[in-house]
Amino acid sequence: MSKFIVVEGLEGAGKTTAQELIKAILTKQNIEFVSTREPGGTPLAEKMRDIVKSETDEILTPEAELLLMYASRIQLIENVIKPALDSGKWVLGDRHDMSSLAYQGGGRQLDQNLIMPIRNAVLKGFEPDLTILMDLDPKIGLARAAARGSLDRIEREQIEFFERTRAVYLSLADQNPKVVVIDASKDIDNVQTQITDKLTAWLTINL
Amino acid sequence: MSKFIVVEGLEGAGKTTAQELIKAILTKQNIEFVSTREPGGTPLAEKMRDIVKSETDEILTPEAELLLMYASRIQLIENVIKPALDSGKWVLGDRHDMSSLAYQGGGRQLDQNLIMPIRNAVLKGFEPDLTILMDLDPKIGLARAAARGSLDRIEREQIEFFERTRAVYLSLADQNPKVVVIDASKDIDNVQTQITDKLTAWLTINL
Repeated sequence: MSKFIVVEGLEGAGKTTAQELIKAILTKQNIEFVSTREPGGTPLAEKMRDIVKSETDEILTPEAELLLMYASRIQLIENVIKPALDSGKWVLGDRHDMSSLAYQGGGRQLDQNLIMPIRNAVLKGFEPDLTILMDLDPKIGLARAAARGSLDRIEREQIEFFERTRAVYLSLADQNPKVVVIDASKDIDNVQTQITDKLTAWLTINL
Repeated sequence: MSKFIVVEGLEGAGKTTAQELIKAILTKQNIEFVSTREPGGTPLAEKMRDIVKSETDEILTPEAELLLMYASRIQLIENVIKPALDSGKWVLGDRHDMSSLAYQGGGRQLDQNLIMPIRNAVLKGFEPDLTILMDLDPKIGLARAAARGSLDRIEREQIEFFERTRAVYLSLADQNPKVVVIDASKDIDNVQTQITDKLTAWLTINL
């Protein structure tokens, strides 16, 4: 059965490196997969991503940001993720719903009474089979992200924003057995070993 | 006190002509006003409008359409409508929330359990002081709209879509004393007289 695996985490936590490793492991297992990213991942969803990331004088309200994230997500689910899974391919996602709960719910502190009805209506119970959460102190992550280039509109938030985001990430991981947490503060070899060990064990059970 | 007046109705029901008349009446009363349109009306909201109106191979899901409409609306309310009202100007809107309830709720038959929490969170009770609903049988309206040019993605829906939309419009008008219904099936002079009479009476009470 096809699976949907997602990599989550704060900026600079090593999501991209983690994905490269996961791709190599899946390829070695002869698993065909499609890679996605959020927000975005379809032509219309990429236009929504452009709005969310855009640098304009006009303030994007937190509510509009949330609505755009879910509009983008439903486009991706309906037009890319579900068709891929139906065709027998796996899907490897760069971010998914956990990001909205963590960033918009935690970071922006948006009301759960707004988030939850949208989320439930959009997802209708759809969720990743496995989420790999790259966990890192945002002070370290942001320094890494800043070192590799300019930060976007969301990445320039205050440190408290990311501390709240991380707290929601960890709390959700604690409640959900389909999330594995990687200690991304370790050196690269250690991090790669953690990912390889956990993913390999999961594949052993689920393949 | 500044007021927010909205013109609503199906395609081809004479919204543009109605707005021109209302602008003339407001101007004669020396009322300063700002004109808006929805979806759109701010730089970011216009980008959302482009997505909603765009002709692509990718299907825009009804849920994404709804989320974009509300994302656009909150940008307009927070960045244009409220600042204008606060500065003492009136606002004349081409469509507002009633369109989403009628088109997405009625036409697309989206679940009220999705629409209402979004609506309440976005609007927080904000509503027009007066809505002028141009009511017309969609068969007539669509023929008029088609005659003046090509129809966009939403305007090309089946007639039943617009019949459901009209039914919600009329039902909402029936429940809301702040909505006046104009019989747009009459000839232009008659329609203009209806609008002038109703708006003038309303201004007499509210000025």
